[in-house]
Amino acid sequence: MAMEAATDAPVSLIDTDVHHVVGDLTEFMPRVWHEKLHRGGLGGGACHDGNPRGVPRRDATPPGGGAPASDPEFLITDHLDRYDIDYAILTGSAGLAVGPDPDFRNAIAAASNDCTIERWLPVTARLKGSIVINSDDPPAAAAEIRRVGVHPDMVQVVMGSASRAPYGQRQYHPIYEAAEELGLPVAIHPGTEGAGQAWPPTPVGYPNRYMEWHNILPLTFMAQINSLVCEGVFERFPSLMFVGLEGGLGWLPHLMWRMDKNFKALRDTTPWLRRLPSEYILDHVRLSTQPIEEPADHRHLEQILEMIDAKRTTMFSSDYPHWDNDNAALVLRRLDPHLRQRIFSGTAAELYGCTVRPERTVRPAAPRPPAPTAALESVE
Amino acid sequence: MAMEAATDAPVSLIDTDVHHVVGDLTEFMPRVWHEKLHRGGLGGGACHDGNPRGVPRRDATPPGGGAPASDPEFLITDHLDRYDIDYAILTGSAGLAVGPDPDFRNAIAAASNDCTIERWLPVTARLKGSIVINSDDPPAAAAEIRRVGVHPDMVQVVMGSASRAPYGQRQYHPIYEAAEELGLPVAIHPGTEGAGQAWPPTPVGYPNRYMEWHNILPLTFMAQINSLVCEGVFERFPSLMFVGLEGGLGWLPHLMWRMDKNFKALRDTTPWLRRLPSEYILDHVRLSTQPIEEPADHRHLEQILEMIDAKRTTMFSSDYPHWDNDNAALVLRRLDPHLRQRIFSGTAAELYGCTVRPERTVRPAAPRPPAPTAALESVE
Repeated sequence: MAMEAATDAPVSLIDTDVHHVVGDLTEFMPRVWHEKLHRGGLGGGACHDGNPRGVPRRDATPPGGGAPASDPEFLITDHLDRYDIDYAILTGSAGLAVGPDPDFRNAIAAASNDCTIERWLPVTARLKGSIVINSDDPPAAAAEIRRVGVHPDMVQVVMGSASRAPYGQRQYHPIYEAAEELGLPVAIHPGTEGAGQAWPPTPVGYPNRYMEWHNILPLTFMAQINSLVCEGVFERFPSLMFVGLEGGLGWLPHLMWRMDKNFKALRDTTPWLRRLPSEYILDHVRLSTQPIEEPADHRHLEQILEMIDAKRTTMFSSDYPHWDNDNAALVLRRLDPHLRQRIFSGTAAELYGCTVRPERTVRPAAPRPPAPTAALESVE
Repeated sequence: MAMEAATDAPVSLIDTDVHHVVGDLTEFMPRVWHEKLHRGGLGGGACHDGNPRGVPRRDATPPGGGAPASDPEFLITDHLDRYDIDYAILTGSAGLAVGPDPDFRNAIAAASNDCTIERWLPVTARLKGSIVINSDDPPAAAAEIRRVGVHPDMVQVVMGSASRAPYGQRQYHPIYEAAEELGLPVAIHPGTEGAGQAWPPTPVGYPNRYMEWHNILPLTFMAQINSLVCEGVFERFPSLMFVGLEGGLGWLPHLMWRMDKNFKALRDTTPWLRRLPSEYILDHVRLSTQPIEEPADHRHLEQILEMIDAKRTTMFSSDYPHWDNDNAALVLRRLDPHLRQRIFSGTAAELYGCTVRPERTVRPAAPRPPAPTAALESVE
C-alpha cells in the first residue's frame, strides 16, 4: 500500500482502536497519589493467569526503548504509515482495571486524559483521543467528560465493558447526558472483566485460564446493549451513539432477534420504547471489527455482516499493538468495495468527525521521563 | 395434522422440552422436610419482577383443575396428540431454583424424579423423563443419576444453566462420569439465573425487568459451553453429550469462531485439546430450537442453521406449556425437508434412543392429591 497519498484524496482508513501506552502518570497526578501509584500500582488485578505470551507485540517496542506503543512517533511510522491509516482513535488502557478507591480511579482517568492531550494529540492531526472515565462514579465521570470533552481532538468517551450494574440503569445517565451534550459517542472496551470492582466475567463465575476468559469477553457487550435498549437510554438521549470496541459482532443477530421477539410479547413492560429493539441497535450502536471472526467459509462472515447491516454498524479496528491485532492489509479483503469502504472509513469518519484527510506532518513529541515497561498496559 | 398414524411409520416429531408440573412433592419426601416445604416453599427466589402475564399458558389448564401441565392425560391430548408428537422429553421444573440448603435441594430433586417415574412415565411410552439434579452438590448429583438413571425411560440428566462456577471445572466431573457411565446426555435449562445460589444473570449484574432478564439468558449457555470445551471435558468423557435447552442457537457461530481463532494462538495453554473447539462443539453439543429466532428475513435463520450444522446439532422443542412456547405446526416450516426431519426427530431420536414409533396407548395416571396451582413452576 502507498506510504504517501495526496491530501485531497478521500479518507480511506480509520483505525478505531489503537492502544497508546500513557506510561507513568506521576507528572499528571497530584502529589497525594504518587506514593500509592508507585508502591501499590493500579491495584485492579485480574481473575486469570494472563496471556502466557504477554499482551503487547514485542516488535512494537520503540527503538528508543520503553513499552510497545509508548512513543507517538514510532507508533505513527510502525502502524499508521505502514498501513496508510488516515486516523487512529487512541483508546489507551481503555478499560482501566484499577482498584476500588473511586478518588484514585478518577485521578488515574484524569491523568490519562491529560497525558493523551499533552503528549499525543499535538504530534499529528492523525491521532484522536478517547476520554477515559471511571464509570463507577458517574457524576465524576460526567464532570471529566465536560472538563476534557471540549478539546476538539477528544472524540469519544471510553469506559470498561465490565460494570457492577448494567449500563442502561439510571445511575449511569449522567455519563450519557454529558456525552450527548458534547456530541461524543460513548464506547466500551474489554479488559476489566473480573478485575477491579467488576463481577465475575461470566454469569457462571470465573474461568480458569486466559483463553477461556478471552473467548467469552463479548458477554458483557451483549448484556450492556440489552440493558441500554430496554432501559430506554436511546429514547432519553436520542442523539447518543454507543460503540462496542473489541467485543466481536457475530453475536448481534441473535441478540437483536431475541430482543425483538420478546418485545412483541412484553412491550407493555417497557412502554418508553417506540420501536423494535433492533431498530435502536442499528441506529445507535457501532461495533469495531477486531478480533474479526474468521469462519472456515468466508460466506458465513459476509452473511453475518448483512444481518447486522454492517455498512452502517461496523468499523475497522486493529487493536495495535496487542497480540491478536488485525492487519488492515489482510482482513476483510474480499468484501464488496462499497461495504469495505463503509467499514474501513465511512462510518467512523461520520461518527468521529474525521471526514477530511489529515495533514501528515509530525511534530516531535514533548520530552518526558522514560515510561516503566509494564505500567498501564491493557490485558485483552 | 393427523391425530393417529400407523405404528410402523417412522418417528417424525420429538419435542425435547416439555415442562410437566410435578406439583406438591410432599408424598415423595421424608417427613423431615414437610414443614419447610409447606411453610417456606422452595426458597429460590428470583432477581426479577416476573412475567407480568405469568409463565404458563392459561389454556393449558387441565379440565379437572390444577396447574397447566400438571395432568399427564390432558398434556397428552392437549399437546402430544394435537401436534402428532411421537415423544416428549419431560423437563419438569428443570432449573429448580431452590434455596441454598444442599440437603433440601437434593431432596427436592430426588422427589421430583420419583414423581416423574411414578406418576408420569407409566401413563404412556411417549413420555420420557429427565433426571433433575442439584449441580451444586456433584457427589450427591452423581449418586442421584446412578439411583434413577437405570430406569429405561429416564433419558437424560438436566440441571440449571446457572451455576456458581463454569461447568467445565473439575468439581462437576462426577456428574459427567455418572452420566457417561449410564449413557445419558447432560442438559442445561434456564430459570435459575440470578435465583437461589446463582450469580447475577449477567457479568454486569442484575437486569431490572423480566424482559431484559429473558433476553439475555443465553449468556450462561455460551459461558458453560466455552468452559466445557476449554477444560477438556469432552476429552475426559469422550462419549458425553451436552444439551442446551431453551438457550437459543444464533450465538453459536460467533462462539465457535472466536474459540477457534484464540485456540490457534493459545492452544499450548490447553494441551489436552486435540481438535479445534468448534469440532468438540459440533460433535458433543446439541441445542433445542425454542424460542426459535425469527429474523425478518427467513434466509438469515437458514444461514445460521448452516453455520451450526443444524442437521446434527439442532433439535425441535416447544417449551409447552410456557408463555412463549413454539408451535410445531408453525415454526421452521420452510426448511429443506431433510434438514427439517433431522431437527424435528432425527437427532433427538438418536440422542435419546427414541428410534421406534411408540404405542399410543394411554394408561390412566395413578390418583394423587391435587397439586397446588403455583408450586414448582418454572419462570422462563
